[in-house]
Amino acid sequence: MLLHLQFKTGCLKAVLVENMKKSMHGKRITRLRQSLAAMDIDTAWIIQPENRRYLSGFKAEDAQHTESSGSLIINKSRCVLVTDSRYATEAEESAIDFEVKILKQGVVEELPELLSQFQTKQLGFEADYLTWGLHRQLSEKIETLPSLVRLVPLNGVVEELREVKDDKEIKALEASADLISAILDKVIAQLQPGLSEKEAAWRIEDFARKAGAEGLSFPSIVASGPNSALPHAVPTDRKLREKEPIVLDVGVKLDGYCSDMTRTIFLGQPGTDFREIYMIVRQAQLSALKEVRAGVESAYPDAVARQVIGDAGFGEFFSHSLGHGVGLATHERPRLGPMKPVKLKTGMVVTVEPGIYIPGKGGVRLEEMVVIEEDGPRVLTKSNNFYNFIS
Amino acid sequence: MLLHLQFKTGCLKAVLVENMKKSMHGKRITRLRQSLAAMDIDTAWIIQPENRRYLSGFKAEDAQHTESSGSLIINKSRCVLVTDSRYATEAEESAIDFEVKILKQGVVEELPELLSQFQTKQLGFEADYLTWGLHRQLSEKIETLPSLVRLVPLNGVVEELREVKDDKEIKALEASADLISAILDKVIAQLQPGLSEKEAAWRIEDFARKAGAEGLSFPSIVASGPNSALPHAVPTDRKLREKEPIVLDVGVKLDGYCSDMTRTIFLGQPGTDFREIYMIVRQAQLSALKEVRAGVESAYPDAVARQVIGDAGFGEFFSHSLGHGVGLATHERPRLGPMKPVKLKTGMVVTVEPGIYIPGKGGVRLEEMVVIEEDGPRVLTKSNNFYNFIS
Repeated sequence: MLLHLQFKTGCLKAVLVENMKKSMHGKRITRLRQSLAAMDIDTAWIIQPENRRYLSGFKAEDAQHTESSGSLIINKSRCVLVTDSRYATEAEESAIDFEVKILKQGVVEELPELLSQFQTKQLGFEADYLTWGLHRQLSEKIETLPSLVRLVPLNGVVEELREVKDDKEIKALEASADLISAILDKVIAQLQPGLSEKEAAWRIEDFARKAGAEGLSFPSIVASGPNSALPHAVPTDRKLREKEPIVLDVGVKLDGYCSDMTRTIFLGQPGTDFREIYMIVRQAQLSALKEVRAGVESAYPDAVARQVIGDAGFGEFFSHSLGHGVGLATHERPRLGPMKPVKLKTGMVVTVEPGIYIPGKGGVRLEEMVVIEEDGPRVLTKSNNFYNFIS
Repeated sequence: MLLHLQFKTGCLKAVLVENMKKSMHGKRITRLRQSLAAMDIDTAWIIQPENRRYLSGFKAEDAQHTESSGSLIINKSRCVLVTDSRYATEAEESAIDFEVKILKQGVVEELPELLSQFQTKQLGFEADYLTWGLHRQLSEKIETLPSLVRLVPLNGVVEELREVKDDKEIKALEASADLISAILDKVIAQLQPGLSEKEAAWRIEDFARKAGAEGLSFPSIVASGPNSALPHAVPTDRKLREKEPIVLDVGVKLDGYCSDMTRTIFLGQPGTDFREIYMIVRQAQLSALKEVRAGVESAYPDAVARQVIGDAGFGEFFSHSLGHGVGLATHERPRLGPMKPVKLKTGMVVTVEPGIYIPGKGGVRLEEMVVIEEDGPRVLTKSNNFYNFIS
């Protein structure tokens, strides 16, 4: 796997402004420009990979956090994708609304000159992604420019645009949810005592790739017996056994869009303890699901689920928030929980995933992906493996 | 996939200092403390995942760049791993030299109080990993402390420790190189016209998982025909054909350690053009390999390979640097190239990977992983698929 040497020549492609206005990415850029204007920021520099893909269609991922595959510079009249020669072809083909500029020396060396061309006065940057070190290097270069450029943190402007999904995104999320639902049904049907957590996890990934997914949206969780009490369990060599909870928390990335769902199943009938816990979690989920609708505070469904679990005496064992937005990233805005509440809106896609975890014994988590429509929530995940132990 | 809610109770475990001095991680921490003392930094805050694993053994990965699974606080007498309840068990089990502190409110809220306990005056942070936003939030909290704490960029202090591998690391890298060598031999033997690049790439991943690897060290490159002219090609549905170059650039992660190797093969005899290019690349590699030894400037082997390729008239088509360090990360120090040269040392493990890429036609890259030993370089990668087209 090679490192870039940075000595290829540059190029600049013209983009027809008229075509752009009509395109999906063009519309998103128009919304971004409105947000920027309201903040008195004339130019945005977008480096975060999902934000970059959302605004441009450029799909290349960063090899490591310190190795960017490219970034966007957007002001009120121009959109430029800067990248290096390794990504030139992909950039030209995918980011059709953008001029593509191939950097020779790297972004620290060449971005300031571009900002001069753009007559940038206030440059918005992604404060939650740009490293302190790169910010300092850039600031020092920018200070050498003849004109004054201020660096201003963007604080989630693009992430906010991404909260509400457009029709095409909802279709993509639906396809991603369909795929993981089908995979989960297949894998659950194959589970049997003696199969290891790792082997089960691997079957999920194998099915995902063979079905044409870009990959998993996150490393699969397959956690059995006491491991299921760890919300963030990593699959081990432990072999599945009868009557114990098996938590499967899985998702795929399809055309860039993530899915995320969880089922807890049992091989054979569980004891009354886990039967009771399962029913409480499912009741909490169903109660919360009803409240996932436009106009509701995002903290409210979490409170509803927490109430059900608390009333049943398991409050201390529900140790995470109810859910989160899903889109180009597995975890994005809005959060369904007590922190940073926002008003839910039509077009948001979120997970609803209550759980109860008894240390040393086991846990149950159930998770659906839901799109908020005008007349209420619609569940996108479709696996039928509910109540599989209830005769 | 769940989000953390941050309301679990804290805990603090005592660590026996005597045991620690003897442990592998204890020795690394001693070296870090020496570096810190030389910089007049009394406390280091380590958030970068590979650095964290290197110093503590804590293996959890960060779910997203904005979601840390934990960080280390190290001063001259104490080592604390701060994490949240999701990772409590893993932290206790893996980071045996560390006190484990479970955060209730998150690192911005609770780190300043810990720094007070530590009587920190100068806090070293990883400037190339910490985001500007988190740095600002922390700075603001730290300013409210009664005593003055300065934030000082660490600039690769742990990365520098990681440059020279100890015996255990070299064994781990050797095992990782052995595994990818065996996988590549198996997959190359299966290649035939009509198989797609994606299918070939998937076989590599499938073998890797089944052999017990944690995963790939980077997404495999399988690039055929004109695609092989793109150094950073992503596998496509293009089907392999006879007589054209097929570049396979692959690696696995085994016990945390990455491997990285490249072969270019042909199905059937290639034409004289690629036969010639192949021989030049191999000659460049062999010439450079001889120079990968302790005491040599890291720019020199690159210059040697570039000279061979340049003399043959293909200088402009070798568009990346010769190689890079490999360890817990696929790309780490030192760089083998003209930029940021350092003196090579015994115990460094690097790749040697010259290439020639003819746009629109195809490319050839050959890559070995090499450990620098006292009496010279030793190649760790072992696939025999060289000159497979030469009868």
